[in-house]
Amino acid sequence: MPFIIDRLAIIGVGLIGGSFARALRQAGAVKTIVGIDRDASNLQQALSLGVVDEISGNPCQGVRGADAVFISVPVCSIPAAFQEIAASLDPGCIVTDGGSVKAGIVSSCEELLPQGSHFVGGHPIAGTEHSGAAASFAALFRGKRCILTPTANTDAEALTIVSRLWEAAGAEVCTMDAQRHDRIFAEISHLPHMVAYSLVHAVGTADAEGENILSYTAGGFRDFTRIASSDPVMWRDIALMNRTALLASIDGFSSSLEVLRTSIEQGDGAGLADFFTRAKRFRDGII
Amino acid sequence: MPFIIDRLAIIGVGLIGGSFARALRQAGAVKTIVGIDRDASNLQQALSLGVVDEISGNPCQGVRGADAVFISVPVCSIPAAFQEIAASLDPGCIVTDGGSVKAGIVSSCEELLPQGSHFVGGHPIAGTEHSGAAASFAALFRGKRCILTPTANTDAEALTIVSRLWEAAGAEVCTMDAQRHDRIFAEISHLPHMVAYSLVHAVGTADAEGENILSYTAGGFRDFTRIASSDPVMWRDIALMNRTALLASIDGFSSSLEVLRTSIEQGDGAGLADFFTRAKRFRDGII
Repeated sequence: MPFIIDRLAIIGVGLIGGSFARALRQAGAVKTIVGIDRDASNLQQALSLGVVDEISGNPCQGVRGADAVFISVPVCSIPAAFQEIAASLDPGCIVTDGGSVKAGIVSSCEELLPQGSHFVGGHPIAGTEHSGAAASFAALFRGKRCILTPTANTDAEALTIVSRLWEAAGAEVCTMDAQRHDRIFAEISHLPHMVAYSLVHAVGTADAEGENILSYTAGGFRDFTRIASSDPVMWRDIALMNRTALLASIDGFSSSLEVLRTSIEQGDGAGLADFFTRAKRFRDGII
Repeated sequence: MPFIIDRLAIIGVGLIGGSFARALRQAGAVKTIVGIDRDASNLQQALSLGVVDEISGNPCQGVRGADAVFISVPVCSIPAAFQEIAASLDPGCIVTDGGSVKAGIVSSCEELLPQGSHFVGGHPIAGTEHSGAAASFAALFRGKRCILTPTANTDAEALTIVSRLWEAAGAEVCTMDAQRHDRIFAEISHLPHMVAYSLVHAVGTADAEGENILSYTAGGFRDFTRIASSDPVMWRDIALMNRTALLASIDGFSSSLEVLRTSIEQGDGAGLADFFTRAKRFRDGII
Protein backbone atom coordinates (compact mmCIF):
# COMPACT_ATOMS: atom_id res chain seq x y z
CA MET A 1 0.00 0.00 0.00
CA PRO A 2 1.36 3.51 -0.82
CA PHE A 3 1.40 5.70 2.29
CA ILE A 4 -1.92 7.45 2.92
CA ILE A 5 0.00 10.10 4.86
CA ASP A 6 3.64 10.48 5.83
CA ARG A 7 3.49 11.48 9.44
CA LEU A 8 0.86 10.68 12.06
CA ALA A 9 0.93 11.90 15.65
CA ILE A 10 -1.06 9.97 18.23
CA ILE A 11 -1.90 11.70 21.51
CA GLY A 12 -2.56 8.97 24.08
CA VAL A 13 -0.82 5.73 23.15
CA GLY A 14 -3.12 3.39 25.09
CA LEU A 15 -5.23 0.48 23.93
CA ILE A 16 -7.00 2.46 21.19
CA GLY A 17 -4.17 4.79 20.14
CA GLY A 18 -1.60 2.00 20.29
CA SER A 19 -3.78 -0.44 18.34
CA PHE A 20 -4.43 2.21 15.67
CA ALA A 21 -0.66 2.70 15.34
CA ARG A 22 0.04 -1.03 15.13
CA ALA A 23 -2.70 -1.61 12.56
CA LEU A 24 -1.54 1.26 10.35
CA ARG A 25 2.10 0.13 10.52
CA GLN A 26 1.11 -3.44 9.71
CA ALA A 27 -0.87 -2.14 6.71
CA GLY A 28 2.03 0.08 5.63
CA ALA A 29 -0.41 2.99 5.56
CA VAL A 30 1.75 5.60 7.32
CA LYS A 31 5.49 6.34 7.01
CA THR A 32 6.18 7.61 10.53
CA ILE A 33 4.14 7.52 13.72
CA VAL A 34 4.92 9.77 16.68
CA GLY A 35 3.55 8.76 20.06
CA ILE A 36 2.66 11.47 22.55
CA ASP A 37 1.65 10.59 26.11
CA ARG A 38 1.72 12.14 29.56
CA ASP A 39 2.73 8.81 31.04
CA ALA A 40 6.49 8.59 30.34
CA SER A 41 6.77 4.90 31.16
CA ASN A 42 3.82 3.96 28.94
CA LEU A 43 5.40 6.04 26.17
CA GLN A 44 8.77 4.39 26.58
CA GLN A 45 7.07 1.00 26.44
CA ALA A 46 5.24 1.99 23.24
CA LEU A 47 8.61 2.80 21.68
CA SER A 48 10.33 -0.38 22.94
CA LEU A 49 7.46 -2.52 21.66
CA GLY A 50 7.68 -0.87 18.25
CA VAL A 51 4.16 0.51 18.49
CA VAL A 52 5.44 3.95 17.42
CA ASP A 53 8.60 5.19 15.65
CA GLU A 54 9.22 8.29 17.73
CA ILE A 55 7.98 9.61 21.03
CA SER A 56 7.42 13.00 22.61
CA GLY A 57 6.32 14.03 26.06
CA ASN A 58 5.39 17.46 24.73
CA PRO A 59 2.24 17.57 22.58
CA CYS A 60 3.10 20.92 20.93
CA GLN A 61 6.48 19.63 19.79
CA GLY A 62 5.15 16.18 18.99
CA VAL A 63 2.53 17.33 16.48
CA ARG A 64 4.95 19.56 14.51
CA GLY A 65 5.21 18.35 10.93
CA ALA A 66 2.33 15.85 11.33
CA ASP A 67 -0.07 15.39 8.42
CA ALA A 68 -2.64 14.06 10.85
CA VAL A 69 -3.16 13.89 14.61
CA PHE A 70 -5.26 11.23 16.34
CA ILE A 71 -6.41 12.31 19.81
CA SER A 72 -7.08 9.21 21.88
CA VAL A 73 -7.37 10.49 25.43
CA PRO A 74 -10.34 10.20 27.85
CA VAL A 75 -13.43 11.76 26.33
CA CYS A 76 -13.63 14.78 28.67
CA SER A 77 -9.98 15.65 27.96
CA ILE A 78 -10.23 15.71 24.17
CA PRO A 79 -11.18 19.42 23.79
CA ALA A 80 -8.36 20.43 26.19
CA ALA A 81 -5.88 18.23 24.32
CA PHE A 82 -6.95 19.88 21.07
CA GLN A 83 -6.67 23.37 22.57
CA GLU A 84 -3.13 22.62 23.72
CA ILE A 85 -1.91 21.66 20.23
CA ALA A 86 -4.05 23.97 18.08
CA ALA A 87 -1.40 26.69 17.64
CA SER A 88 1.32 24.11 16.82
CA LEU A 89 -0.47 22.35 13.95
CA ASP A 90 1.10 22.53 10.49
CA PRO A 91 -1.07 24.11 7.79
CA GLY A 92 -3.40 21.48 6.30
CA CYS A 93 -3.06 19.15 9.29
CA ILE A 94 -6.05 16.89 9.93
CA VAL A 95 -7.08 16.27 13.53
CA THR A 96 -9.37 13.39 14.43
CA ASP A 97 -10.35 11.72 17.69
CA GLY A 98 -11.66 8.47 19.15
CA GLY A 99 -14.13 9.79 21.73
CA SER A 100 -17.27 7.78 22.46
CA VAL A 101 -19.44 10.91 22.74
CA LYS A 102 -19.38 13.19 19.71
CA ALA A 103 -21.60 16.29 19.59
CA GLY A 104 -19.81 18.23 22.34
CA ILE A 105 -16.36 17.28 21.09
CA VAL A 106 -17.15 18.12 17.48
CA SER A 107 -18.50 21.58 18.30
CA SER A 108 -15.64 22.36 20.75
CA CYS A 109 -12.98 21.21 18.31
CA GLU A 110 -14.51 23.04 15.34
CA GLU A 111 -14.48 26.24 17.42
CA LEU A 112 -10.83 25.75 18.37
CA LEU A 113 -9.71 24.80 14.85
CA PRO A 114 -7.05 27.13 13.41
CA GLN A 115 -7.53 28.46 9.86
CA GLY A 116 -6.22 25.93 7.35
CA SER A 117 -6.43 22.88 9.63
CA HIS A 118 -9.19 20.26 9.60
CA PHE A 119 -11.18 18.30 12.15
CA VAL A 120 -13.08 15.03 11.69
CA GLY A 121 -14.83 13.46 14.69
CA GLY A 122 -14.54 9.69 15.03
CA HIS A 123 -15.55 6.79 17.26
CA PRO A 124 -14.11 3.31 16.70
CA ILE A 125 -16.51 0.74 18.20
CA ALA A 126 -13.89 -1.51 19.70
CA GLY A 127 -12.15 -2.12 22.98
CA THR A 128 -11.17 -4.68 25.56
CA GLU A 129 -11.11 -4.55 29.34
CA HIS A 130 -7.36 -3.84 29.23
CA SER A 131 -5.56 -0.52 28.82
CA GLY A 132 -2.14 0.88 28.01
CA ALA A 133 0.23 0.54 25.05
CA ALA A 134 1.22 -2.98 26.12
CA ALA A 135 -2.41 -4.11 25.70
CA SER A 136 -2.67 -2.78 22.14
CA PHE A 137 -2.79 -5.09 19.12
CA ALA A 138 -3.10 -4.60 15.39
CA ALA A 139 -6.31 -6.59 14.95
CA LEU A 140 -8.42 -4.63 17.46
CA PHE A 141 -10.41 -2.79 14.78
CA ARG A 142 -10.61 -5.59 12.23
CA GLY A 143 -14.23 -6.05 11.16
CA LYS A 144 -15.39 -3.45 13.71
CA ARG A 145 -17.23 -0.29 12.85
CA CYS A 146 -15.70 3.16 13.04
CA ILE A 147 -18.25 5.98 12.98
CA LEU A 148 -17.13 9.34 11.63
CA THR A 149 -19.29 12.40 12.31
CA PRO A 150 -18.61 15.08 9.69
CA THR A 151 -20.49 18.39 9.75
CA ALA A 152 -21.24 21.01 7.10
CA ASN A 153 -17.82 22.50 7.95
CA THR A 154 -15.85 19.30 7.40
CA ASP A 155 -13.29 19.29 4.59
CA ALA A 156 -14.17 16.51 2.13
CA GLU A 157 -10.56 15.52 1.52
CA ALA A 158 -9.83 15.36 5.25
CA LEU A 159 -12.86 13.08 5.69
CA THR A 160 -11.57 10.83 2.89
CA ILE A 161 -8.10 10.57 4.44
CA VAL A 162 -9.45 9.75 7.91
CA SER A 163 -11.78 7.14 6.36
CA ARG A 164 -8.88 5.57 4.46
CA LEU A 165 -6.78 5.40 7.63
CA TRP A 166 -9.53 3.57 9.52
CA GLU A 167 -10.14 1.26 6.58
CA ALA A 168 -6.42 0.52 6.44
CA ALA A 169 -6.66 -0.32 10.16
CA GLY A 170 -9.32 -2.90 9.29
CA ALA A 171 -12.46 -1.02 10.32
CA GLU A 172 -15.72 -0.65 8.44
CA VAL A 173 -16.27 3.11 8.25
CA CYS A 174 -19.68 4.75 8.33
CA THR A 175 -20.68 8.36 8.81
CA MET A 176 -23.53 9.90 10.72
CA ASP A 177 -24.59 13.13 12.35
CA ALA A 178 -22.95 13.63 15.78
CA GLN A 179 -26.32 14.14 17.53
CA ARG A 180 -27.68 10.94 16.06
CA HIS A 181 -24.50 9.12 17.13
CA ASP A 182 -24.94 10.36 20.69
CA ARG A 183 -28.62 9.41 20.78
CA ILE A 184 -27.90 5.87 19.53
CA PHE A 185 -25.02 5.30 21.94
CA ALA A 186 -27.03 6.74 24.82
CA GLU A 187 -29.52 3.92 24.17
CA ILE A 188 -27.32 0.96 23.39
CA SER A 189 -24.26 1.66 25.53
CA HIS A 190 -24.56 4.52 28.02
CA LEU A 191 -28.05 3.62 29.31
CA PRO A 192 -27.15 -0.05 29.93
CA HIS A 193 -24.16 1.08 31.98
CA MET A 194 -26.30 3.47 34.04
CA VAL A 195 -28.84 0.68 34.58
CA ALA A 196 -26.15 -1.81 35.64
CA TYR A 197 -24.54 0.64 38.06
CA SER A 198 -27.98 1.50 39.51
CA LEU A 199 -28.89 -2.15 39.87
CA VAL A 200 -25.73 -2.96 41.78
CA HIS A 201 -26.21 0.19 43.86
CA ALA A 202 -29.79 -0.87 44.70
CA VAL A 203 -28.80 -4.42 45.62
CA GLY A 204 -25.94 -3.07 47.72
CA THR A 205 -28.42 -0.83 49.52
CA ALA A 206 -30.81 -3.76 50.06
CA ASP A 207 -27.86 -5.76 51.41
CA ALA A 208 -26.92 -3.01 53.86
CA GLU A 209 -27.38 -5.40 56.76
CA GLY A 210 -24.46 -7.42 55.40
CA GLU A 211 -26.41 -10.60 54.67
CA ASN A 212 -24.16 -11.16 51.65
CA ILE A 213 -27.21 -11.87 49.52
CA LEU A 214 -25.12 -12.12 46.37
CA SER A 215 -23.73 -15.41 47.68
CA TYR A 216 -27.05 -16.95 46.60
CA THR A 217 -26.65 -16.15 42.91
CA ALA A 218 -25.73 -18.92 40.51
CA GLY A 219 -23.66 -16.58 38.33
CA GLY A 220 -26.50 -14.77 36.58
CA PHE A 221 -26.17 -11.59 38.61
CA ARG A 222 -22.42 -11.55 38.14
CA ASP A 223 -22.74 -11.86 34.36
CA PHE A 224 -25.53 -9.31 34.16
CA THR A 225 -23.64 -6.70 36.14
CA ARG A 226 -20.22 -7.21 34.57
CA ILE A 227 -20.34 -3.75 32.97
CA ALA A 228 -20.79 -2.17 36.44
CA SER A 229 -17.11 -3.01 36.96
CA SER A 230 -16.14 -0.55 34.23
CA ASP A 231 -13.92 2.42 34.99
CA PRO A 232 -15.93 4.93 37.12
CA VAL A 233 -13.96 7.93 35.84
CA MET A 234 -14.57 7.05 32.20
CA TRP A 235 -18.28 6.65 32.84
CA ARG A 236 -18.46 9.86 34.84
CA ASP A 237 -17.01 11.62 31.79
CA ILE A 238 -19.38 9.92 29.34
CA ALA A 239 -22.41 10.68 31.53
CA LEU A 240 -21.38 14.34 31.74
CA MET A 241 -20.55 14.65 28.03
CA ASN A 242 -23.72 12.94 26.76
CA ARG A 243 -26.03 14.36 29.39
CA THR A 244 -28.96 15.43 27.19
CA ALA A 245 -29.30 12.23 25.18
CA LEU A 246 -28.65 10.08 28.23
CA LEU A 247 -31.35 11.77 30.32
CA ALA A 248 -33.84 11.13 27.50
CA SER A 249 -32.78 7.46 27.37
CA ILE A 250 -33.08 7.08 31.14
CA ASP A 251 -36.57 8.60 31.01
CA GLY A 252 -37.60 6.20 28.21
CA PHE A 253 -36.30 3.30 30.25
CA SER A 254 -38.11 4.49 33.39
CA SER A 255 -41.35 4.65 31.40
CA SER A 256 -40.89 1.06 30.25
CA LEU A 257 -40.13 -0.09 33.79
CA GLU A 258 -43.22 1.76 35.02
CA VAL A 259 -45.40 -0.08 32.48
CA LEU A 260 -43.99 -3.36 33.74
CA ARG A 261 -44.36 -2.33 37.38
CA THR A 262 -48.04 -1.50 36.85
CA SER A 263 -48.66 -4.91 35.25
CA ILE A 264 -47.03 -6.62 38.23
CA GLU A 265 -48.95 -4.52 40.74
CA GLN A 266 -52.26 -5.22 38.99
CA GLY A 267 -51.50 -8.92 38.63
CA ASP A 268 -51.97 -8.52 34.86
CA GLY A 269 -50.65 -11.86 33.60
CA ALA A 270 -51.54 -11.20 29.97
CA GLY A 271 -49.83 -7.79 30.09
CA LEU A 272 -46.69 -9.33 31.62
CA ALA A 273 -46.51 -12.14 29.09
CA ASP A 274 -46.96 -9.63 26.27
CA PHE A 275 -44.27 -7.30 27.66
CA PHE A 276 -41.74 -10.12 28.11
CA THR A 277 -42.57 -11.69 24.75
CA ARG A 278 -42.16 -8.43 22.84
CA ALA A 279 -38.85 -7.70 24.57
CA LYS A 280 -37.56 -11.22 23.89
CA ARG A 281 -38.67 -11.03 20.25
CA PHE A 282 -36.96 -7.66 19.74
CA ARG A 283 -33.73 -8.89 21.28
CA ASP A 284 -33.66 -12.30 19.60
CA GLY A 285 -34.72 -10.84 16.25
CA ILE A 286 -31.91 -8.45 15.71
CA ILE A 287 -28.96 -9.97 17.48
CA MET B 1 -25.33 -45.66 50.48
CA PRO B 2 -28.40 -47.26 52.13
CA PHE B 3 -31.60 -46.00 50.55
CA ILE B 4 -32.83 -42.77 52.11
CA ILE B 5 -36.32 -43.67 50.93
CA ASP B 6 -37.71 -46.54 48.88
CA ARG B 7 -40.03 -44.87 46.45
CA LEU B 8 -39.87 -41.32 45.03
CA ALA B 9 -42.41 -39.84 42.63
CA ILE B 10 -41.34 -36.90 40.50
CA ILE B 11 -44.05 -34.74 38.94
CA GLY B 12 -42.50 -32.97 35.96
CA VAL B 13 -39.51 -34.91 34.59
CA GLY B 14 -37.80 -31.97 32.91
CA LEU B 15 -34.34 -30.52 33.41
CA ILE B 16 -34.72 -30.16 37.19
CA GLY B 17 -36.90 -33.20 37.94
CA GLY B 18 -34.90 -35.42 35.58
CA SER B 19 -31.55 -34.27 36.95
CA PHE B 20 -32.75 -34.87 40.53
CA ALA B 21 -33.73 -38.42 39.51
CA ARG B 22 -30.41 -39.10 37.77
CA ALA B 23 -28.38 -37.73 40.68
CA LEU B 24 -30.30 -39.80 43.26
CA ARG B 25 -29.98 -42.96 41.19
CA GLN B 26 -26.27 -42.37 40.68
CA ALA B 27 -25.89 -41.93 44.45
CA GLY B 28 -27.99 -45.04 45.15
CA ALA B 29 -30.14 -42.92 47.45
CA VAL B 30 -33.56 -44.13 46.30
CA LYS B 31 -34.78 -47.63 45.39
CA THR B 32 -37.45 -46.75 42.81
CA ILE B 33 -38.26 -43.51 41.01
CA VAL B 34 -41.61 -42.95 39.30
CA GLY B 35 -41.79 -40.24 36.67
CA ILE B 36 -45.07 -38.37 36.16
CA ASP B 37 -45.51 -35.89 33.33
CA ARG B 38 -48.30 -34.48 31.19
CA ASP B 39 -46.07 -34.69 28.15
CA ALA B 40 -46.27 -38.39 27.14
CA SER B 41 -43.33 -38.22 24.73
CA ASN B 42 -41.09 -36.54 27.30
CA LEU B 43 -42.13 -39.19 29.82
CA GLN B 44 -41.39 -42.04 27.40
CA GLN B 45 -38.00 -40.50 26.73
CA ALA B 46 -37.29 -40.28 30.49
CA LEU B 47 -38.00 -44.00 30.74
CA SER B 48 -35.93 -44.94 27.66
CA LEU B 49 -33.00 -42.88 28.89
CA GLY B 50 -33.17 -44.60 32.27
CA VAL B 51 -33.86 -41.36 34.09
CA VAL B 52 -36.76 -43.02 35.95
CA ASP B 53 -37.74 -46.65 36.66
CA GLU B 54 -41.46 -46.35 36.07
CA ILE B 55 -43.74 -43.80 34.49
CA SER B 56 -47.32 -42.67 34.92
CA GLY B 57 -49.42 -40.18 33.03
CA ASN B 58 -51.82 -39.98 35.97
CA PRO B 59 -50.49 -38.06 39.00
CA CYS B 60 -53.01 -39.61 41.45
CA GLN B 61 -52.00 -43.15 40.47
CA GLY B 62 -48.32 -42.23 40.13
CA VAL B 63 -47.93 -40.98 43.70
CA ARG B 64 -49.55 -44.05 45.32
CA GLY B 65 -47.10 -45.82 47.57
CA ALA B 66 -44.50 -43.06 47.29
CA ASP B 67 -42.48 -42.14 50.40
CA ALA B 68 -41.79 -38.75 48.86
CA VAL B 69 -43.04 -36.66 45.96
CA PHE B 70 -40.97 -33.96 44.24
CA ILE B 71 -43.12 -31.43 42.37
CA SER B 72 -41.03 -29.88 39.62
CA VAL B 73 -43.54 -28.07 37.42
CA PRO B 74 -43.72 -24.34 36.53
CA VAL B 75 -43.96 -22.24 39.67
CA CYS B 76 -47.58 -21.10 39.19
CA SER B 77 -48.74 -24.71 38.69
CA ILE B 78 -47.23 -26.14 41.88
CA PRO B 79 -50.24 -25.52 44.18
CA ALA B 80 -52.62 -27.01 41.56
CA ALA B 81 -50.33 -30.03 41.12
CA PHE B 82 -50.34 -30.50 44.88
CA GLN B 83 -54.10 -30.15 45.09
CA GLU B 84 -54.53 -32.83 42.42
CA ILE B 85 -52.50 -35.43 44.34
CA ALA B 86 -53.34 -34.47 47.94
CA ALA B 87 -56.07 -37.09 48.43
CA SER B 88 -53.92 -39.85 46.88
CA LEU B 89 -50.89 -39.47 49.14
CA ASP B 90 -49.93 -42.39 51.38
CA PRO B 91 -49.89 -41.63 55.14
CA GLY B 92 -46.52 -40.15 56.09
CA CYS B 93 -45.68 -39.14 52.53
CA ILE B 94 -43.36 -36.13 52.20
CA VAL B 95 -44.07 -33.63 49.44
CA THR B 96 -41.42 -31.11 48.37
CA ASP B 97 -41.04 -28.79 45.39
CA GLY B 98 -38.47 -26.92 43.33
CA GLY B 99 -40.23 -23.59 42.79
CA SER B 100 -38.15 -20.42 42.60
CA VAL B 101 -40.70 -18.40 44.61
CA LYS B 102 -41.54 -19.82 48.02
CA ALA B 103 -43.89 -17.92 50.36
CA GLY B 104 -47.06 -18.35 48.28
CA ILE B 105 -46.32 -22.00 47.49
CA VAL B 106 -45.49 -22.88 51.09
CA SER B 107 -48.69 -21.36 52.47
CA SER B 108 -50.88 -22.88 49.70
CA CYS B 109 -49.35 -26.31 50.10
CA GLU B 110 -49.55 -26.26 53.89
CA GLU B 111 -53.25 -25.44 53.61
CA LEU B 112 -53.86 -28.29 51.17
CA LEU B 113 -51.80 -30.79 53.16
CA PRO B 114 -53.81 -33.86 54.28
CA GLN B 115 -53.48 -34.96 57.92
CA GLY B 116 -50.41 -37.19 58.32
CA SER B 117 -48.57 -36.00 55.21
CA HIS B 118 -45.71 -33.50 55.19
CA PHE B 119 -44.60 -30.56 53.06
CA VAL B 120 -41.14 -29.01 52.77
CA GLY B 121 -40.61 -26.10 50.36
CA GLY B 122 -37.41 -26.16 48.33
CA HIS B 123 -35.50 -24.23 45.67
CA PRO B 124 -32.41 -25.71 44.03
CA ILE B 125 -30.26 -22.87 42.65
CA ALA B 126 -29.29 -24.53 39.41
CA GLY B 127 -30.36 -24.66 35.81
CA THR B 128 -29.26 -24.39 32.23
CA GLU B 129 -30.90 -22.79 29.21
CA HIS B 130 -32.18 -26.22 28.12
CA SER B 131 -35.32 -28.06 29.18
CA GLY B 132 -36.87 -31.54 29.09
CA ALA B 133 -35.81 -34.95 30.37
CA ALA B 134 -33.24 -35.31 27.60
CA ALA B 135 -31.41 -32.21 28.87
CA SER B 136 -31.16 -33.55 32.43
CA PHE B 137 -27.85 -34.73 33.90
CA ALA B 138 -26.75 -36.10 37.26
CA ALA B 139 -24.22 -33.37 38.02
CA LEU B 140 -26.60 -30.42 37.68
CA PHE B 141 -26.82 -29.80 41.44
CA ARG B 142 -23.26 -30.70 42.35
CA GLY B 143 -21.78 -27.91 44.46
CA LYS B 144 -24.91 -25.79 43.99
CA ARG B 145 -27.10 -24.55 46.80
CA CYS B 146 -30.54 -25.89 47.55
CA ILE B 147 -32.59 -23.66 49.83
CA LEU B 148 -35.27 -25.31 51.97
CA THR B 149 -37.90 -23.11 53.60
CA PRO B 150 -39.40 -24.91 56.62
CA THR B 151 -42.07 -23.24 58.76
CA ALA B 152 -43.22 -23.78 62.35
CA ASN B 153 -45.51 -26.49 60.93
CA THR B 154 -42.77 -28.45 59.19
CA ASP B 155 -42.11 -31.98 60.45
CA ALA B 156 -38.48 -32.23 61.57
CA GLU B 157 -37.97 -35.73 60.19
CA ALA B 158 -39.46 -34.75 56.82
CA LEU B 159 -37.05 -31.81 56.67
CA THR B 160 -34.14 -34.14 57.44
CA ILE B 161 -35.12 -36.58 54.71
CA VAL B 162 -35.53 -33.84 52.07
CA SER B 163 -32.16 -32.40 53.12
CA ARG B 164 -30.51 -35.81 52.81
CA LEU B 165 -32.00 -36.32 49.35
CA TRP B 166 -30.61 -32.98 48.12
CA GLU B 167 -27.24 -33.68 49.73
CA ALA B 168 -27.20 -37.07 48.03
CA ALA B 169 -27.88 -35.23 44.75
CA GLY B 170 -24.73 -33.19 45.41
CA ALA B 171 -26.28 -29.95 46.62
CA GLU B 172 -25.28 -27.84 49.61
CA VAL B 173 -28.48 -27.48 51.62
CA CYS B 174 -29.37 -24.39 53.61
CA THR B 175 -32.63 -23.33 55.21
CA MET B 176 -34.27 -19.96 55.48
CA ASP B 177 -37.62 -18.34 56.01
CA ALA B 178 -39.75 -18.32 52.82
CA GLN B 179 -40.29 -14.54 52.98
CA ARG B 180 -36.57 -13.92 53.30
CA HIS B 181 -35.94 -16.27 50.37
CA ASP B 182 -38.40 -14.33 48.23
CA ARG B 183 -36.92 -10.97 49.20
CA ILE B 184 -33.37 -12.11 48.39
CA PHE B 185 -34.34 -13.63 45.04
CA ALA B 186 -36.44 -10.59 44.16
CA GLU B 187 -33.21 -8.58 44.46
CA ILE B 188 -30.61 -10.83 42.89
CA SER B 189 -32.65 -12.64 40.26
CA HIS B 190 -36.17 -11.34 39.63
CA LEU B 191 -35.26 -7.63 39.61
CA PRO B 192 -32.36 -8.09 37.13
CA HIS B 193 -34.73 -9.90 34.77
CA MET B 194 -37.34 -7.12 35.04
CA VAL B 195 -34.60 -4.54 34.40
CA ALA B 196 -33.27 -6.44 31.38
CA TYR B 197 -36.72 -6.87 29.85
CA SER B 198 -37.48 -3.17 30.46
CA LEU B 199 -34.18 -2.10 28.93
CA VAL B 200 -34.78 -4.11 25.78
CA HIS B 201 -38.36 -2.81 25.68
CA ALA B 202 -37.12 0.79 25.99
CA VAL B 203 -34.46 0.39 23.29
CA GLY B 204 -37.04 -1.29 21.05
CA THR B 205 -39.34 1.69 21.58
CA ALA B 206 -36.51 4.13 20.82
CA ASP B 207 -35.76 2.11 17.66
CA ALA B 208 -39.40 2.30 16.52
CA GLU B 209 -38.32 4.05 13.32
CA GLY B 210 -36.47 0.88 12.35
CA GLU B 211 -32.98 2.36 12.35
CA ASN B 212 -31.67 -0.97 13.61
CA ILE B 213 -29.65 0.82 16.27
CA LEU B 214 -28.52 -2.45 17.84
CA SER B 215 -26.36 -3.06 14.78
CA TYR B 216 -23.95 -0.51 16.30
CA THR B 217 -23.24 -2.50 19.45
CA ALA B 218 -19.95 -4.33 19.78
CA GLY B 219 -21.53 -7.19 21.73
CA GLY B 220 -21.95 -5.43 25.07
CA PHE B 221 -25.69 -4.91 24.70
CA ARG B 222 -26.20 -8.50 23.60
CA ASP B 223 -24.34 -9.85 26.63
CA PHE B 224 -26.05 -7.47 29.04
CA THR B 225 -29.53 -8.36 27.82
CA ARG B 226 -29.04 -12.11 27.48
CA ILE B 227 -31.49 -12.78 30.32
CA ALA B 228 -34.21 -10.89 28.43
CA SER B 229 -34.31 -13.94 26.14
CA SER B 230 -35.59 -16.08 29.04
CA ASP B 231 -38.97 -17.80 28.82
CA PRO B 232 -41.70 -15.10 29.02
CA VAL B 233 -44.24 -17.50 30.57
CA MET B 234 -41.88 -18.54 33.34
CA TRP B 235 -41.12 -14.92 34.14
CA ARG B 236 -44.78 -13.94 34.02
CA ASP B 237 -45.38 -16.61 36.67
CA ILE B 238 -42.47 -15.52 38.85
CA ALA B 239 -43.49 -11.85 38.64
CA LEU B 240 -47.05 -12.77 39.67
CA MET B 241 -45.96 -15.15 42.44
CA ASN B 242 -43.38 -12.82 43.99
CA ARG B 243 -45.31 -9.61 43.46
CA THR B 244 -44.84 -7.96 46.84
CA ALA B 245 -41.10 -8.49 47.20
CA LEU B 246 -40.52 -7.70 43.53
CA LEU B 247 -42.40 -4.38 43.70
CA ALA B 248 -40.25 -3.38 46.69
CA SER B 249 -37.10 -4.31 44.75
CA ILE B 250 -38.22 -2.37 41.68
CA ASP B 251 -38.91 0.67 43.87
CA GLY B 252 -35.46 0.41 45.47
CA PHE B 253 -33.90 0.20 42.03
CA SER B 254 -35.91 3.19 40.77
CA SER B 255 -34.68 5.23 43.74
CA SER B 256 -31.08 4.38 42.89
CA LEU B 257 -31.60 5.28 39.24
CA GLU B 258 -33.21 8.56 40.30
CA VAL B 259 -30.16 9.44 42.43
CA LEU B 260 -27.98 8.79 39.39
CA ARG B 261 -30.31 10.71 37.07
CA THR B 262 -30.19 13.75 39.36
CA SER B 263 -26.38 13.69 39.39
CA ILE B 264 -26.33 13.56 35.60
CA GLU B 265 -28.89 16.35 35.27
CA GLN B 266 -26.98 18.58 37.70
CA GLY B 267 -23.63 17.82 36.06
CA ASP B 268 -22.39 16.57 39.45
CA GLY B 269 -19.12 14.90 38.45
CA ALA B 270 -18.09 14.11 42.03
CA GLY B 271 -21.49 12.54 42.74
CA LEU B 272 -21.29 10.44 39.58
CA ALA B 273 -17.77 9.22 40.29
CA ASP B 274 -18.81 8.34 43.84
CA PHE B 275 -21.93 6.47 42.67
CA PHE B 276 -20.04 4.45 40.05
CA THR B 277 -17.12 3.77 42.39
CA ARG B 278 -19.35 2.49 45.20
CA ALA B 279 -21.30 0.24 42.80
CA LYS B 280 -18.09 -1.13 41.30
CA ARG B 281 -16.60 -1.74 44.73
CA PHE B 282 -19.71 -3.58 45.95
CA ARG B 283 -19.80 -5.78 42.86
CA ASP B 284 -16.06 -6.49 42.70
CA GLY B 285 -15.86 -7.04 46.45
CA ILE B 286 -18.31 -9.87 46.80
CA ILE B 287 -18.14 -11.72 43.51
